[in-house]
Amino acid sequence: MPYVTVKMLEGRSDEQKKALVEKVTDAVSDTTGASKEKIVVFIEEMSKSHYGVGGKRLSDAE
Amino acid sequence: MPYVTVKMLEGRSDEQKKALVEKVTDAVSDTTGASKEKIVVFIEEMSKSHYGVGGKRLSDAE
Amino acid sequence: MPYVTVKMLEGRSDEQKKALVEKVTDAVSDTTGASKEKIVVFIEEMSKSHYGVGGKRLSDAE
Amino acid sequence: MPYVTVKMLEGRSDEQKKALVEKVTDAVSDTTGASKEKIVVFIEEMSKSHYGVGGKRLSDAE
Amino acid sequence: MPYVTVKMLEGRSDEQKKALVEKVTDAVSDTTGASKEKIVVFIEEMSKSHYGVGGKRLSDAE
Amino acid sequence: MPYVTVKMLEGRSDEQKKALVEKVTDAVSDTTGASKEKIVVFIEEMSKSHYGVGGKRLSDAE
Repeated sequence: MPYVTVKMLEGRSDEQKKALVEKVTDAVSDTTGASKEKIVVFIEEMSKSHYGVGGKRLSDAE
Repeated sequence: MPYVTVKMLEGRSDEQKKALVEKVTDAVSDTTGASKEKIVVFIEEMSKSHYGVGGKRLSDAE
Repeated sequence: MPYVTVKMLEGRSDEQKKALVEKVTDAVSDTTGASKEKIVVFIEEMSKSHYGVGGKRLSDAE
Repeated sequence: MPYVTVKMLEGRSDEQKKALVEKVTDAVSDTTGASKEKIVVFIEEMSKSHYGVGGKRLSDAE
Repeated sequence: MPYVTVKMLEGRSDEQKKALVEKVTDAVSDTTGASKEKIVVFIEEMSKSHYGVGGKRLSDAE
Repeated sequence: MPYVTVKMLEGRSDEQKKALVEKVTDAVSDTTGASKEKIVVFIEEMSKSHYGVGGKRLSDAE
């Protein structure tokens, strides 16, 4: 606790995800006062065919 | 904003998903007054082995 | 099934929410083929102090 | 209703997931008074590279 | 880990929620093999005006 | 996109939440390459009576 979920398009590299978890944890700890070891981060990836803005999926917009 | 998540069993066609995003966006815009370009739709699919009703998974009910 | 969650800022009227549930259900039924009685809609409201875009909360942007 | 989501690391067997849905449904029914046939359970699996505690992903901790 | 979210209508007593967390944790531990102290349960309540089935909110069905 | 949800116990100050949104957005932008104006942050608060670890709610542990 806190529990952080980051939902984003698939395609980031493993190094980017590793850094994401590390830096988001730091940001949450610094601003909420929660100790780092209690902070949990989940990454959820979505495909362009399952994500739409303005009524149009990203996979249809290309 | 608004953000809409549609969770459903896998198996719909790409055309169905395209229409789903389009029509749900229209419905949300018409009823909430939000402009279409601000409405986001996420589709999440689940398998029959990860979904249960009444204590029984759909994959076990067949 | 399907399960639809609509997350939006608080402040819509009861009539708007009623219409939202009705019209979104129609849109999901028409495009996925699911029967209306199986479609579930959840509304989740958030406050402007719990929602940020570009690093700035809506409550701070006013 | 109620709707239960169980988020866990991938790797459990099909038998474990079957029992999970059955036993969680029983527990929710017994304690809330909801009838079993109205209780829905979703299983969501995550990989070790998408889950971090204390700023470190499980895939990096091994 | 695992993380369990139980979403249900508001109105259960504090004793019911206490028992819910206890019994669901037991059920998840027994079936997945996860140790009890690692299992997290979140309760989310919703109102009848924010929940609809078949296009109709529960608050409108009464 | 990305969409970040931070779920935590209620009780943080408005200043802490403001800083949380700002710093998490920076962390996500720096590590994923997403532009800041596209990053969305949601804060979700929970009470101690709706959150349990190891089968025991925080409100019962005090």
